[in-house]
Amino acid sequence: MTRRIEIIGISGIPMIKSGDNLGKIIVEAAEKMNLKINDLDIFLVTQIIVSKSEGRVYPLSDFAPSKDALRIAAMTGKDPRHVEAILREALRIVRIRGEVIITETRHGFICANSGVDLSNVGEGMVALLPIDPDKSAKNIRKSIEELTGKHVAVIITDSHGRPFRRGAINIAIGCSGIEPIWDRRGEKDLHGRVLRSKQVCIADELASAAELVMGQADEGVPVVIIRGYNYKISEDGARRIVRPAEEDLFR
Amino acid sequence: MTRRIEIIGISGIPMIKSGDNLGKIIVEAAEKMNLKINDLDIFLVTQIIVSKSEGRVYPLSDFAPSKDALRIAAMTGKDPRHVEAILREALRIVRIRGEVIITETRHGFICANSGVDLSNVGEGMVALLPIDPDKSAKNIRKSIEELTGKHVAVIITDSHGRPFRRGAINIAIGCSGIEPIWDRRGEKDLHGRVLRSKQVCIADELASAAELVMGQADEGVPVVIIRGYNYKISEDGARRIVRPAEEDLFR
Repeated sequence: MTRRIEIIGISGIPMIKSGDNLGKIIVEAAEKMNLKINDLDIFLVTQIIVSKSEGRVYPLSDFAPSKDALRIAAMTGKDPRHVEAILREALRIVRIRGEVIITETRHGFICANSGVDLSNVGEGMVALLPIDPDKSAKNIRKSIEELTGKHVAVIITDSHGRPFRRGAINIAIGCSGIEPIWDRRGEKDLHGRVLRSKQVCIADELASAAELVMGQADEGVPVVIIRGYNYKISEDGARRIVRPAEEDLFR
Repeated sequence: MTRRIEIIGISGIPMIKSGDNLGKIIVEAAEKMNLKINDLDIFLVTQIIVSKSEGRVYPLSDFAPSKDALRIAAMTGKDPRHVEAILREALRIVRIRGEVIITETRHGFICANSGVDLSNVGEGMVALLPIDPDKSAKNIRKSIEELTGKHVAVIITDSHGRPFRRGAINIAIGCSGIEPIWDRRGEKDLHGRVLRSKQVCIADELASAAELVMGQADEGVPVVIIRGYNYKISEDGARRIVRPAEEDLFR
């Protein structure tokens, strides 16, 4: 049997504002494309429109810089108000080098600038990550399911740099309706040898696959459907992907 | 316009032996599926069959353990000959914890066990990574191009664990015919703001996308085609993705 998976961009998503119902907007955009939503479709939604719909975009002037922010702004050449937003979103600073601040966010993500973004939000504005991206995914999923009567999964994605390798890749910061990690320990290989260590982060692989479509149109495509991938339905969120320091072999 | 990308598994790839011409085998398998190969198709090939075709599978008995290997085998509970193979493939040991040895390979990859694998090679055998995976990709590409007259790209993939996040993901260890990193610095966002830091490792994202199909069949699918993704043709290899320690903000 031929295995085939499709990654389909949802076009015609309007500019998102605070309070918008993303699930409804996505279903309407799919309808306009004559794209029928199927059971087990996986919806991948880029973080920035989730942050916008949840009112997580603020004027930089809301972030009066602390002493620490002023000091780090001088080191990095960043706007002190941007640094203040980064610090407020951080559990701790991991490293500062050049103009980059690596932090651990309140979600446990280790990434540049606590995920606080000046892009795609207009001059003088700043976008913070959703407070609880798993809950964001669940809300979007519930409205798509109510409107369509189908079981779907939702993954919220963001682009992260990483150690050891150049270039950012898209990862899953939130999910709902899909088991994010496929635990294959105990399965057998081609020669009957039992696999001892195989766990695959399919949520991150799906997020990376989605970026291939999200990134290509001139104006970007904030939502894609991945269709044809068999997954385990689960209420686990992407929080499970975050690896605590004490079990991290690379730290 | 609808953006749509397909990930298509190539079925019917036989067990691969040393000396096999992988490009030819892939083209023949696609023909048997009535799958026409198009210009700009991207072929993703899992590392283990590349290693097999290049004779990189050895009996464990070829690796007489050194003193270091014996010591590390005692610490980790691994077969001392397996440890010896890991050490011979390593530039340095990064960390040893529990039964896992993290090394830097001669290619610069930081991964578990120098990528030396006891899975899918049969009892008493061990598979090493290709010596030069970019060259492996180039050889496969050249034979596909000669047989079909099409321009294609080839990416060799392997599954790697990583810091900070649970679960392995598929990454690109070699490539040919595709620019592995898409440098978007200087482009403008939705509001005309110039992007300062955006570089995307599309080769790794393609590898992760491929794993969604590679992993699913019972016996595994060692080769997939990704179709519909626009990329820049390039002779750069995946070696460019390896980030030297001195420019790594996370180290």
